[in-house]
Amino acid sequence: MPQAYDVAAIGNAIVDVIAPATDDFLALEGLAKGAMGLIDEGRAEALYAAMGAGIEASGGSAANTVAGVASFGGKAAYMGKVAEDLLGEVFIHDIRAGGVTFETAPLQEGAATARCLINVTPDGQRTMSTFLGASVFLTPADVDASIIKAAQAIYMEGYLFDAPGARAAFVKAAGIARDAGRLIAITLSDAFVVERHRAGLLAFIEAEVDLVFANEVETMALFETADFAAAATALGQLTKTAAITRGEHGSVIMSDGQYEAIATKPVPAVIDTTGAGDQYAAGFLFGLARGRPLAECARLGHIAASEVIGHYGPRPQTSLKDLAFAA
Amino acid sequence: MPQAYDVAAIGNAIVDVIAPATDDFLALEGLAKGAMGLIDEGRAEALYAAMGAGIEASGGSAANTVAGVASFGGKAAYMGKVAEDLLGEVFIHDIRAGGVTFETAPLQEGAATARCLINVTPDGQRTMSTFLGASVFLTPADVDASIIKAAQAIYMEGYLFDAPGARAAFVKAAGIARDAGRLIAITLSDAFVVERHRAGLLAFIEAEVDLVFANEVETMALFETADFAAAATALGQLTKTAAITRGEHGSVIMSDGQYEAIATKPVPAVIDTTGAGDQYAAGFLFGLARGRPLAECARLGHIAASEVIGHYGPRPQTSLKDLAFAA
Repeated sequence: MPQAYDVAAIGNAIVDVIAPATDDFLALEGLAKGAMGLIDEGRAEALYAAMGAGIEASGGSAANTVAGVASFGGKAAYMGKVAEDLLGEVFIHDIRAGGVTFETAPLQEGAATARCLINVTPDGQRTMSTFLGASVFLTPADVDASIIKAAQAIYMEGYLFDAPGARAAFVKAAGIARDAGRLIAITLSDAFVVERHRAGLLAFIEAEVDLVFANEVETMALFETADFAAAATALGQLTKTAAITRGEHGSVIMSDGQYEAIATKPVPAVIDTTGAGDQYAAGFLFGLARGRPLAECARLGHIAASEVIGHYGPRPQTSLKDLAFAA
Repeated sequence: MPQAYDVAAIGNAIVDVIAPATDDFLALEGLAKGAMGLIDEGRAEALYAAMGAGIEASGGSAANTVAGVASFGGKAAYMGKVAEDLLGEVFIHDIRAGGVTFETAPLQEGAATARCLINVTPDGQRTMSTFLGASVFLTPADVDASIIKAAQAIYMEGYLFDAPGARAAFVKAAGIARDAGRLIAITLSDAFVVERHRAGLLAFIEAEVDLVFANEVETMALFETADFAAAATALGQLTKTAAITRGEHGSVIMSDGQYEAIATKPVPAVIDTTGAGDQYAAGFLFGLARGRPLAECARLGHIAASEVIGHYGPRPQTSLKDLAFAA
């Protein structure tokens, strides 16, 4: 019998501030292009003041993914921590407006809702500086076991490893999912996250995880090698299925020792790659929850990623269901 | 000698919330498609709760226009009222980040920064519901005479006629500009604004205004006729120059009794028409301040409008200078 949810996700609940930037600006601000760096509130204010004019949009990696699942017509739930402030209201509005179940109680006092300052260079690459704020106050108490049990798959961000409480929530959710026989998926999130938490991630993946999402750089970082084929093979041995994104070259699926490359169509104009990996995961997870073959899951992932890189903002602006399934 | 500013603008300082919507949603919420309606804070909260997931972006008609002027490489200044809150900070950040001079003191207490809830239907049409908040607390004291005198042209929104204080600021600014020999431009803003303030607008245009921006519907509303040619002729008689936008059909310039139609190139995918008229005015005013012929001013307007309707959000996301002048 199908579950109430296709996917239940846990992640850092973040609002994005996205603006165009030059490569010189990244250099001047000491930002590592394409990566995610953690910053404190003071640095966030200074960096924001220096950034160009932009847009604000609800973000957060796993939240973007469940928004994508909902856009495919899937049923999704999300757990993450915002504050009781305006950005928190925006986050809650946007995730619920997409049809995603979201019931995590906002943080009552203390830190503000998390913000990710995203500088987008003319090549479409996004460089992220995150003030984690309220998002790291997610704790195991915020994990709703009934939702985890009612989902085909649970999906969690490697980003959560940066906060002890959130990491504990992550572990609790995995335990509930395992006991209920649910698929457990994670994304490695970022090469720097992998470097900070390599041992913990390796142990966790081996013990608990059925499906790993990663890009090439993260995969190589996990195994400390510059040899992508070797890293992909190692990841494939560590977990049942790995889906590794390769930008314009599509993605690679490692499953039961087999390697399969899936091509993607060129996107006419890449505007902003924010959310590309998140939307790939959305398509893949939606397909998997609906029993599609892995190669088709990857193709759904590419459809979603192609939509999101054609505009500023990390979530789909057109119906992924229509894009994928309309004649 | 050229002035310090190409354009100084006065307007309602607003942050936009832009989300996709269906025509059924507009009908259900009683919204007049393509128009701007004024709402109070309670209605704003209820409508926001009902809207889809969206993005937030600094807006305000005249503010969008000066952001466009700056994107062309022009020098611009802006006067408008925000509150001391997060949306006010976003507005100030974005307008200054574009290089626009903005020094209006924020409102210390009382209303929140103005918000415009914009529902975008699949045809790209935007329907706006505005909670004016702090923006209507702009007063003549906020008009900086030294900036007005230092600008080639001043530009004001018809929207300002809805708030007595702002309207007084409008009149004060026009007086300073007239005494300094500056060009005075306005936009009619919205057909409902025209209906609410027809007599006042007609008298003000005849007495003070050198250049009027309007679309077809607003032009016909001003003269209470369904005959566009008659309305355009009447507007041409009332003011020195009128630039009337006609969507995909380009624009019409009425000047010294002459009628000139300027075509525009088709835009491959119209995503969101928010800001189209504002950006047309940006290109036109920038060209005029730089001494270009009227037909070229209109073409610059079309370049800017075409950019902004290709994405969500009311301000350019690529350099208009590059679009217009790069070989």
